[in-house]
Amino acid sequence: MSETISERVLSLGWTLPPPSSPVANFLPTLRVGNLLYIAGQIPVEADRYLGRLGAELDLNLGRSAARSAALALLAHISSVTRGNISMVRQVVRLGVFIAAVSDFKQHPEVANGASDLFVRVFGNAGRHVRTAIGVASLPRGVAVEVDAIVELEP
Amino acid sequence: MSETISERVLSLGWTLPPPSSPVANFLPTLRVGNLLYIAGQIPVEADRYLGRLGAELDLNLGRSAARSAALALLAHISSVTRGNISMVRQVVRLGVFIAAVSDFKQHPEVANGASDLFVRVFGNAGRHVRTAIGVASLPRGVAVEVDAIVELEP
Amino acid sequence: MSETISERVLSLGWTLPPPSSPVANFLPTLRVGNLLYIAGQIPVEADRYLGRLGAELDLNLGRSAARSAALALLAHISSVTRGNISMVRQVVRLGVFIAAVSDFKQHPEVANGASDLFVRVFGNAGRHVRTAIGVASLPRGVAVEVDAIVELEP
Repeated sequence: MSETISERVLSLGWTLPPPSSPVANFLPTLRVGNLLYIAGQIPVEADRYLGRLGAELDLNLGRSAARSAALALLAHISSVTRGNISMVRQVVRLGVFIAAVSDFKQHPEVANGASDLFVRVFGNAGRHVRTAIGVASLPRGVAVEVDAIVELEP
Repeated sequence: MSETISERVLSLGWTLPPPSSPVANFLPTLRVGNLLYIAGQIPVEADRYLGRLGAELDLNLGRSAARSAALALLAHISSVTRGNISMVRQVVRLGVFIAAVSDFKQHPEVANGASDLFVRVFGNAGRHVRTAIGVASLPRGVAVEVDAIVELEP
Repeated sequence: MSETISERVLSLGWTLPPPSSPVANFLPTLRVGNLLYIAGQIPVEADRYLGRLGAELDLNLGRSAARSAALALLAHISSVTRGNISMVRQVVRLGVFIAAVSDFKQHPEVANGASDLFVRVFGNAGRHVRTAIGVASLPRGVAVEVDAIVELEP
């Protein structure tokens, strides 16, 4: 029997959190055809990642925040696929939103915290297009929010 | 004969505006297969919702701004479906963009102004995934802009 | 034999750049069914478009930055279609992210720098929905980033 998403994450040195419950009136995931749309996720340990890049948070913490938000996305993917890695045909797109000061420039390095996780977990199926931008503020005051579109097997 | 989108909105206590004309070189809606992409909409009464959350606008006004932008989206959905509620299979995704100061934290509460409207109008078919972020500024100086992807019946 | 995308761009007075290599761990384009998702692109000559609208950059420079980012998107479309214009069935959606101060209001005028290019290159097939927002900062300090979804012929 093949490795689950949770086991795969653990073997890479991280821990898959339980899927978050939306804090407001929306769904965490919605499937249309083979595309799974996932709502914007903030880091699992939100209180560790409060503030803005270029002010309260340095690059390393920003990258960790992005990875933590990606783990929250993975938790939903695992929930929808019942942990079956081979159900993920392709991670299609990530939107990476980084609370940052106006002269911050290293959005790609922060966003790699999320992108690297997907590539390590899913290999080529984890490779995706991405848009990374610096925003004014995010829910609860966190530094990073990430959303995703994932293609599942039929 | 079943209730139209406009009648349904009215029965909930609001009024469906006429669909906006784009202020620039883009389309308000575009259908690909069963998915209807809708351009980012600002509140119908834009001048009532100028400024940023955490500065010029409080939470209640922000929520009203989000609902007003959602009514602008609904106007386009109504236009495309000729008012036929049952043509809307599922509201798939909302993008909620909130002009906000850097320490604003209540994006989910603001965004619910839009989400709640879709759920009240369409019931389960109105439930969606969502990404809400705080931005630096928006067209015309408004506080909220919302875009959407909606799945229509074939 | 019909005009290529590169020839078409040249006939309009611009030059198609080579497709950019991602600066980080993501793909420039990914096709799912007939939809081509393209990663957020910054202006080709990034150093000419540093700063924010409403501060370091005026409207004309902002519009040029948006057109330059759109040329970067076009370079990827040309690469995927081998320059064949007729392979582009419809430009579906642009996301236009504009680094801007909090009282900037002319996002639509800036974003038209990108939208106008697509309409001039592809005609009706270049018409799209769009979301334009003002952000806090962008990769490398540029003023504009644009991403896209394009429908290709089967």
